[in-house]
Amino acid sequence: MSATASHRSRETEERATTRRPGEVVGVSEAILGRTSIRAFTSQPLEAGLLRQILDVARYAPSGSNMQPWRMIAVAGEARDRVVDAVRDRQAGEDAGDEAGDHPIRPSPIWEPYRTRRFKVAEDMYGKLGIPRSDKPARLRFLAGNAEFFGAPVGLFFVIDRNLGHSQWAHLGMLMQTVALAAYERGVASCMQEFWASTRQTLARHFDLPPHEMIYCGMALGFADETAPVNTLRSDRASLDEICEFRGFIPE
Amino acid sequence: MSATASHRSRETEERATTRRPGEVVGVSEAILGRTSIRAFTSQPLEAGLLRQILDVARYAPSGSNMQPWRMIAVAGEARDRVVDAVRDRQAGEDAGDEAGDHPIRPSPIWEPYRTRRFKVAEDMYGKLGIPRSDKPARLRFLAGNAEFFGAPVGLFFVIDRNLGHSQWAHLGMLMQTVALAAYERGVASCMQEFWASTRQTLARHFDLPPHEMIYCGMALGFADETAPVNTLRSDRASLDEICEFRGFIPE
Repeated sequence: MSATASHRSRETEERATTRRPGEVVGVSEAILGRTSIRAFTSQPLEAGLLRQILDVARYAPSGSNMQPWRMIAVAGEARDRVVDAVRDRQAGEDAGDEAGDHPIRPSPIWEPYRTRRFKVAEDMYGKLGIPRSDKPARLRFLAGNAEFFGAPVGLFFVIDRNLGHSQWAHLGMLMQTVALAAYERGVASCMQEFWASTRQTLARHFDLPPHEMIYCGMALGFADETAPVNTLRSDRASLDEICEFRGFIPE
Repeated sequence: MSATASHRSRETEERATTRRPGEVVGVSEAILGRTSIRAFTSQPLEAGLLRQILDVARYAPSGSNMQPWRMIAVAGEARDRVVDAVRDRQAGEDAGDEAGDHPIRPSPIWEPYRTRRFKVAEDMYGKLGIPRSDKPARLRFLAGNAEFFGAPVGLFFVIDRNLGHSQWAHLGMLMQTVALAAYERGVASCMQEFWASTRQTLARHFDLPPHEMIYCGMALGFADETAPVNTLRSDRASLDEICEFRGFIPE
């Protein structure tokens, strides 16, 4: 792990816990501090706070400013009905992957993605204390995805299925912007591609028109600070591994 | 324009100009303050500062932490050689759109995207004082894309062409994270899908392996504060237009 990676895991957390009320959350602090939270408290996320977050996040950029996105936010009973719809589906015969022609990832996946994916999963189950041999326990944990890991709010990202790869990139810009604006306000998040695998069930549940599809969902709420899984800090490839510098004068 | 939209154009700019050295740039301030800059000064962007930006931005999230991205940063002579390669192409016979099977957007585009796209273009040319009747002047301005609008650094985003829509969303998360981390450090940016239209020329120029493709580029440098085009603040759809709230208790 590089110096920067450990910088992420120590200094940013210290800063988060010593912050004074009203103190500004800096951009880099939020980028380094945002992590996928997989255990939430039951504290509700008020509509007003969610609206503040999204009202800022809608300023995410997009090619030609087309804003190729729509969101559906669920809380309370509406959230519970989504959980029920997906649970009913899983109890039925047709609980297969519903991602269709927009799969979450190619399968099988190749290097270096395969190893990165394997590593973060092992790190996560390590925090949970679930060994690889205990497949049922791993599946039970993953099933928490379908309950937003206990979060009070679910946010679904909707895109026109006739739009292309570029517009999916723009949708990703919106998603990260939501996550950072949430972090700034003490709201934790987990981007959940899991929901893509229930895409058809969700389309029926929300009565989406044929041209719309849900890319995925995001759990939003307040982190359970006592949950070991929330201490996971995923690795990143080093800068020199992912970026080639050409024509720069050495300093 | 909503209250939030005018909030963007006034308060965030005031704050940007009255900031004390070392003062933290908040997340929302950066989201609202970041805009596409289309006129840069000749001030170089040092490798060290660029590395700081990217060293934070690599903590952008991605599904299964696969980090489906690679970047190529060019400055100095390497930057100029990219500009030359694309100019030579345009002087040749084959200056068509090279976006191939990953077009920048569907054509023709439909509503509401068509109107949003039209509006931001008209607003931009309005700032430039170029009427719709003066097509040659509009094309001359657009040609500045191929020179990074004068920016000292170009950053290209590379993806494995066998990856799918989800991974393009992740790539978008990285791009917005770069733009925000740059803004925090006073570095201006312009995401340029233009470069997708020169994708094959760039692949040859950078000698990319067959499985890699460039999504697009980003100009990075310092904003020319005297250029009217940089005062453009693109609209956004209202929150209620893009987000449906279900199950929230009215406050």
